[in-house]
Amino acid sequence: MKAWRNDAVNDMELQRLLSMMTLEEKVDQLLQLAPAFFEGANSAGQITGPLEGLGITEATVRRAGSALGLGGAEEAIAIQDAHLRHNRLNIPLLIMADVIHGYRTIFPVPLAIGSSWDMELAGRTAAIAAKEAAAAGIHVTFSPMADLTRDPRWGRVMESTGEDPWLNGEYARAFVRGYQGKDVAKEPYKIAACIKHFAAYGAAEGGRDYNTVDMSEWMRREYYMPSYRAALDEGCEMVMTAFNTVDGIPATGNRKLMRDLLREEWGFNGVLISDWGAVKEMIPHGVAENERECARKAIEAGVDIEMMSPCYPHHLQELVESGEVDVKLVDEAVMRILRLKRKLGLFQKPHRYADPAAEQDILLCAEHLDAAHEAALRSCVLLKNEQNTLPLNKDMKTALIGPFAVSDDLLGPWSCMGKREETATLAESMSLLAGSSALTAVGCGVESITEKELTDMLTAARSADVVVLALGEASEMSGEAGCRADIRLPGCQLELVQRVRELGKPTVAVLFNGRPLDLHGVLDEADSVLEAWYPGTKGAEAVAELLYGEANPSGRLTMSFPYSVGQVPVYYNAFNTGRPQSDPSAPVRYESQYLDIPNEPLLPFGYGLGYTEFEYGQAVLSSDELHAGSSLSASVSVTNAGSRAGEETVQLYVRDISGETVRPLRELKAFRKITLNAGETKEIEFLLTEDMLRYHHSDLSYHSDSGAFIAMVGPNSREVQELPFQLISGVYGTTTTTT
Amino acid sequence: MKAWRNDAVNDMELQRLLSMMTLEEKVDQLLQLAPAFFEGANSAGQITGPLEGLGITEATVRRAGSALGLGGAEEAIAIQDAHLRHNRLNIPLLIMADVIHGYRTIFPVPLAIGSSWDMELAGRTAAIAAKEAAAAGIHVTFSPMADLTRDPRWGRVMESTGEDPWLNGEYARAFVRGYQGKDVAKEPYKIAACIKHFAAYGAAEGGRDYNTVDMSEWMRREYYMPSYRAALDEGCEMVMTAFNTVDGIPATGNRKLMRDLLREEWGFNGVLISDWGAVKEMIPHGVAENERECARKAIEAGVDIEMMSPCYPHHLQELVESGEVDVKLVDEAVMRILRLKRKLGLFQKPHRYADPAAEQDILLCAEHLDAAHEAALRSCVLLKNEQNTLPLNKDMKTALIGPFAVSDDLLGPWSCMGKREETATLAESMSLLAGSSALTAVGCGVESITEKELTDMLTAARSADVVVLALGEASEMSGEAGCRADIRLPGCQLELVQRVRELGKPTVAVLFNGRPLDLHGVLDEADSVLEAWYPGTKGAEAVAELLYGEANPSGRLTMSFPYSVGQVPVYYNAFNTGRPQSDPSAPVRYESQYLDIPNEPLLPFGYGLGYTEFEYGQAVLSSDELHAGSSLSASVSVTNAGSRAGEETVQLYVRDISGETVRPLRELKAFRKITLNAGETKEIEFLLTEDMLRYHHSDLSYHSDSGAFIAMVGPNSREVQELPFQLISGVYGTTTTTT
Repeated sequence: MKAWRNDAVNDMELQRLLSMMTLEEKVDQLLQLAPAFFEGANSAGQITGPLEGLGITEATVRRAGSALGLGGAEEAIAIQDAHLRHNRLNIPLLIMADVIHGYRTIFPVPLAIGSSWDMELAGRTAAIAAKEAAAAGIHVTFSPMADLTRDPRWGRVMESTGEDPWLNGEYARAFVRGYQGKDVAKEPYKIAACIKHFAAYGAAEGGRDYNTVDMSEWMRREYYMPSYRAALDEGCEMVMTAFNTVDGIPATGNRKLMRDLLREEWGFNGVLISDWGAVKEMIPHGVAENERECARKAIEAGVDIEMMSPCYPHHLQELVESGEVDVKLVDEAVMRILRLKRKLGLFQKPHRYADPAAEQDILLCAEHLDAAHEAALRSCVLLKNEQNTLPLNKDMKTALIGPFAVSDDLLGPWSCMGKREETATLAESMSLLAGSSALTAVGCGVESITEKELTDMLTAARSADVVVLALGEASEMSGEAGCRADIRLPGCQLELVQRVRELGKPTVAVLFNGRPLDLHGVLDEADSVLEAWYPGTKGAEAVAELLYGEANPSGRLTMSFPYSVGQVPVYYNAFNTGRPQSDPSAPVRYESQYLDIPNEPLLPFGYGLGYTEFEYGQAVLSSDELHAGSSLSASVSVTNAGSRAGEETVQLYVRDISGETVRPLRELKAFRKITLNAGETKEIEFLLTEDMLRYHHSDLSYHSDSGAFIAMVGPNSREVQELPFQLISGVYGTTTTTT
Repeated sequence: MKAWRNDAVNDMELQRLLSMMTLEEKVDQLLQLAPAFFEGANSAGQITGPLEGLGITEATVRRAGSALGLGGAEEAIAIQDAHLRHNRLNIPLLIMADVIHGYRTIFPVPLAIGSSWDMELAGRTAAIAAKEAAAAGIHVTFSPMADLTRDPRWGRVMESTGEDPWLNGEYARAFVRGYQGKDVAKEPYKIAACIKHFAAYGAAEGGRDYNTVDMSEWMRREYYMPSYRAALDEGCEMVMTAFNTVDGIPATGNRKLMRDLLREEWGFNGVLISDWGAVKEMIPHGVAENERECARKAIEAGVDIEMMSPCYPHHLQELVESGEVDVKLVDEAVMRILRLKRKLGLFQKPHRYADPAAEQDILLCAEHLDAAHEAALRSCVLLKNEQNTLPLNKDMKTALIGPFAVSDDLLGPWSCMGKREETATLAESMSLLAGSSALTAVGCGVESITEKELTDMLTAARSADVVVLALGEASEMSGEAGCRADIRLPGCQLELVQRVRELGKPTVAVLFNGRPLDLHGVLDEADSVLEAWYPGTKGAEAVAELLYGEANPSGRLTMSFPYSVGQVPVYYNAFNTGRPQSDPSAPVRYESQYLDIPNEPLLPFGYGLGYTEFEYGQAVLSSDELHAGSSLSASVSVTNAGSRAGEETVQLYVRDISGETVRPLRELKAFRKITLNAGETKEIEFLLTEDMLRYHHSDLSYHSDSGAFIAMVGPNSREVQELPFQLISGVYGTTTTTT
């Protein structure tokens, strides 16, 4: 009876297992529940949506296929053991969790990791998260999120890597490699990744979470799809549906999106899971009158696992028995789940790496803390540094004031098993470096400041040589459902900046937040501004080191910081329009612009400073013609003209002057991170090839066109040298609709 | 040789004319130029885009087909005469102009007319504009604009009628009827209408004019297309292309949009004209490398007239001669233009109604001024009226202060030949009604207020019983290219409101502006607020009468007033999402909402008050089932519970609970304007039929589905009574993709 429980489990044996399953067992294999439902659970796990009475019987729970969000190895083992005791065919549970930026060792939020422009580092954070999660009994993480984001009102931008399709894809690949390794089945302590949210969840209208998404298929394929596709090309095992509509139909019930595109066109054979409750949410969406219709639409669209809603267990059996749903659809879904369980080795080792002892050793181990430290160092972005106010001099008296001076709210949203109380505060970390006598730290509220707090802060500031303002958003102000219509810092903090400026002291602002902010009142007031995001478990230490110059900031923004919320959406890879602004300094009517603000964001994509200066030589192309099958090199010499070593991110953009459709003003095509000692010069060379010039045409075909292009080289998307060239001889590349 | 110059000009004769034309003459027939180019001109006309050296020869001008934006009958006659003298085949010029909300008699801006919910009135304003324009020698107006608008940052929302597809369509029809009459060829003083901007120009990203537009075709057909289609169904003679891209291709070069949809699917046979310079703007858009490519793409897309760019005259002849463009495309375009000229009678009467004497009699005649007065009265929307602060008592001392107290900037953008200096100010009009001794008026700047102005205003306010704040935007702050990222009143005005409130006097705010504003600092501060928009030539008189209660405000908003710019886009006919906010007063996490502001706009679609109160009885449906071919009636009694006569706009909305695609929370389906005397009750009955329940499915088919619906009846889109019913027996309606 248990022949499939051996090392050679293969598809034929899984088919045999399938044939032994009752329809009820098949249907319930498609259900995912929170741990609260399971025997052996001691935690409620992460509750990420309305946990309502699902009307699930104990028998159904015993047949359920997977669980999400557990509390550690012991619980995972207990639940799995109890499950196997009860489950007629001994099919193990697949255990998943939201391991987004670390499991127990918390790394900077993804938008911060994005600022590192460091794929090795990004992959390493994922590998560490996987190792910790695996030891804690997790098999699959609901990560990475590859949603392209242009609207900082949306709370979940902190979970993205920004506004560039290609860079998002590179990060998605790096994260998938980190979680899964080269072979998730064979490499130890790897877990399966689940790319999300398919598709285009990042474009929620008005930046309001779960809101309508609408765009042309052309736009979707050109900007929003490449990052999901990159993750799948990297072998990502699972896909999660988005909450939003795509062409008027919720993604979770969207056949065209899921069956036609994801399964057939892209050939994805892995497991497709709904987001939390999303199957049943087709009722409020208004495309299903009842749970039964939800179940039918989801299975027809190809959703294998229903997360936390009961439409499949309540109705799928009946839908099959009545002939409305072909049992083949159910069988396929079950087989995909069983295959993943087999691949992860669960039939042989249902606990997989769950091990309380190993968990003890692995979680928060020194190597992981070091990586968290490095990731925080490399994620911070220096936005401004006048009069070399940074780095701070340890001999100067420093007042560290503001809501994040003594706060442990540095892990950011969705920080899984991270513990705030173990996280050093900025005050502690700065004291360790500079000595506590050099530092006076006074904290305050994030959204309101008491009279006493204000008085204490100003008193501290008055007697200091330099003031460090630790400002930001409380972590619950971003993340899922953390959307803000006003993207400035809370008013009390802006007032604090004003009050401090009146003292006339050198002032540094350090920002802890999860989104691009409208920084008026900060960037124009403080002498220096360091964007620290939510930097994670070792964030305070890293920020302190950056402030005192023990490390050199090297992060670069991957999402534009808008001039104001009234400019949203603003992103670097926009189209030129038919009436581009000719001279921002002398606006003329009847050009595309606002009357009251510039077209340009406050801080552009790719932007970031450091404690040294880089000078770019004259960039050159090896030829002004590019032929298919051949390449062109764009080269530039970069010199560290400052007095200390530093890291520069040299960026290559391309503009297609004229296409069959409109083409963006610039598109990131490559970048190189280089470290230069003071006075050192390096020659950077980028290879340009025809495949980098392909794009989606109006018939959705993907290829390049001959014609005029401009290559651009520079330190960010705004300050570039332009190098014109021609792509010679016609149309190249695939003409299929594949991205 | 001039056989086509007779009363019986028919298509065959036009064909003969065409056959006599050289290719050069054909090509230049497609060109439209500003009057500055023509002999006989004494004005530069309206310059609405960059007027660059077009490189047009005198010979080309003599062959040009049309002119835009003239300065009156004399000039029109002079130009036409000179043109016919020079033109080898005596083909008259077609003379067009931007007659948007009146020619010489200026009516409220379209967004204000929209607030009247009065199609007869809207049509009458168009008919008067046509009469004046016709007498001044205009043959075609570039109106109506039927662009659906959801973003108040966009300056051109003032030129739209709002956010509802059906209501926009009704207005488009009314305007077309007004301009063209039943038969533009036979009814005197009619001019041809040109619907614009095809398509979806209202969705410019970020509310920045000329910016990228992107949406799904499903969205476009369901929301954005119906109003254009309605105008064409009404017989609108011309269509203008939009500046924006549609599916990545500028509308002006978009074959799918123009040939496939507009010409073939919709069967439009009239003249298609580019917007100003839009053919050549394909170069900056980046879909054409040069003028030659622009010309090819525009003629292939089906653009008949090139407005103010020289791509056709410079390159079309050569494109035909080289075989790249089929001469048939040119011939078809010429024929459409000749047919319109014939239809308008220009071959017989090239001056048409141009007549300096008639012009003298017709322009600004009493009847027209009366209509302008009525339109202004019916366009104003009372937004708030606490303590019955309005109407004002003539015996009370009133201080009228603020930038619009003594301003003549009341005509709004695009006010054609309207003259500000003839426009009464609000101070003048209020003095006429109340006596100058009762009123102290002090003006100030719109964007800055001097110390003296402030002192004078506060002095006046201090000694008054009631303060009327005349606030708003200068007209150049809206209209084409008049986009604002901050949609509040300028800061100095908000400060003025504060200073006045400190005086503790009853305060009324009257707003002159062209867009929905964020009214925080006004709506919450003033006791009463009247939205007067830009009310036109007789606007000040009308506003004064409304303020003093000689008339009763009856306007209703057709575009939501957002809570703040961070809420944009916000519109009443939105989708429910999968996680609608359950209780705005007690928000729970993980629902679709902002952390800092409500989901609801500050003021909803359909909203408006008056000086009396209406009470709604219990609404009832005649049945809870609707069968195809049959109808259902929704009825409600409405009682004027106040002490004076007033007008109410009873509104019917429908919600489709579950569709094949998501369906809006409510859609306006009908409305009834009724006048009730004090104490009077009327029974209102709406008929609901199956065709009102059709919508675009994901395959773009247009039909209804059986299932559950809710009819809603009420005074605006927020305060409704819900009446559930079922549509019985399957799928109805056309299954073509026609809207």
